[in-house]
Amino acid sequence: MLSSTPRTRHRRIKENGRTDPADLRAVLAAGLVAHLGVVIDGHPMVIPTVFGHDDERIFLHGSVASRSLLGAGEVCVTVTVLDGLVLARSVFEHGVNYRSAMIYGVPQAVTDPDDLLYGLRLLSEHAAPGQWDYARRPSKKELAATRLLALPLTEASVKISDGFPEDGDGPDAALGLWAGRLPVVATWGTPVPDPLLPAGIEPPPHIAGRAGETLG
Amino acid sequence: MLSSTPRTRHRRIKENGRTDPADLRAVLAAGLVAHLGVVIDGHPMVIPTVFGHDDERIFLHGSVASRSLLGAGEVCVTVTVLDGLVLARSVFEHGVNYRSAMIYGVPQAVTDPDDLLYGLRLLSEHAAPGQWDYARRPSKKELAATRLLALPLTEASVKISDGFPEDGDGPDAALGLWAGRLPVVATWGTPVPDPLLPAGIEPPPHIAGRAGETLG
Repeated sequence: MLSSTPRTRHRRIKENGRTDPADLRAVLAAGLVAHLGVVIDGHPMVIPTVFGHDDERIFLHGSVASRSLLGAGEVCVTVTVLDGLVLARSVFEHGVNYRSAMIYGVPQAVTDPDDLLYGLRLLSEHAAPGQWDYARRPSKKELAATRLLALPLTEASVKISDGFPEDGDGPDAALGLWAGRLPVVATWGTPVPDPLLPAGIEPPPHIAGRAGETLG
Repeated sequence: MLSSTPRTRHRRIKENGRTDPADLRAVLAAGLVAHLGVVIDGHPMVIPTVFGHDDERIFLHGSVASRSLLGAGEVCVTVTVLDGLVLARSVFEHGVNYRSAMIYGVPQAVTDPDDLLYGLRLLSEHAAPGQWDYARRPSKKELAATRLLALPLTEASVKISDGFPEDGDGPDAALGLWAGRLPVVATWGTPVPDPLLPAGIEPPPHIAGRAGETLG
């Protein structure tokens, strides 16, 4: 069970809250961008960034840390996957189907060389599976220039909304209006070669094979 | 020009920063979910939410405000559109193409009835154009139960990254690896009728016609 602290306890729409760590990992596996919330001089700042994760930690690329994270203390990392709109008979009952995870904690800089490589591989493979074995891996110099942050997956809140409109058995049903879901589908497109790429180099299967595949 | 304050000045990747308000509006027009950052008891919290906007303000549904916004002071609202991955010859040069906008300010509750309707219409039409005229509009009772927040678009930072890998003319080019972009394409899917919908009610053109259309 994920911990229930005052802020992760689900208040508004109780039925949407999940406490199974498998749900948290599933949302992280489905998302490609995290929104990192930090407090700078008392003011909130929300920064989009890529991430990776295993069952214990989420890893964030430290380049976003330039001024935002170091010494900023606690953060909130939110990963949201939009699944579609809920179109009801009344504007008031409209909504969104989504999966989201909010993770709270104080991130730690990853400094151990093995752990740094481990976390970078997770980050790379999360976005582009197969690239870690295909592309040139980081050199010692590059690793020294890389900041990676890790946040434990211990305090988290997961919400999943996958319903239909709630006015189908109310008075508005008599309006005779269409109601339902309008899904959003994100897919990988066709690879676009770097203009500097010499002729004859084709994208490998782990890249070309993703075209048309659904994200999340 | 968007204001340049210390936090909206672009530091890390200067070439990505935009100061034209038209860029800000274009990112908002392309995004469907905003991530709202607030500070609660000194701790950051990042909440996904739908939004609407005109040229002057961004509107956020106040249901997210239950405990997060009222009295929380300044917020940061970030809207991010993911356009794809940048796959380089080296892991170190990998990146993401995206468009993002970060808006800072103290949100105001919208209480004037006309302004409330105006903002709600923007919010509704942003996600589901045509629904404001098709679905039943909010009743007085529903309006009284609706909280809407408005944030001026005066202090904002816009970043757009749409490049190719940067190692195409460096030593790694000799590796002979494929490099380029892998786009992410989000499209509207086929409408799914509410199970409670009586037979014979078809989705109207403003809904059915979106199937296959690209978001953002």
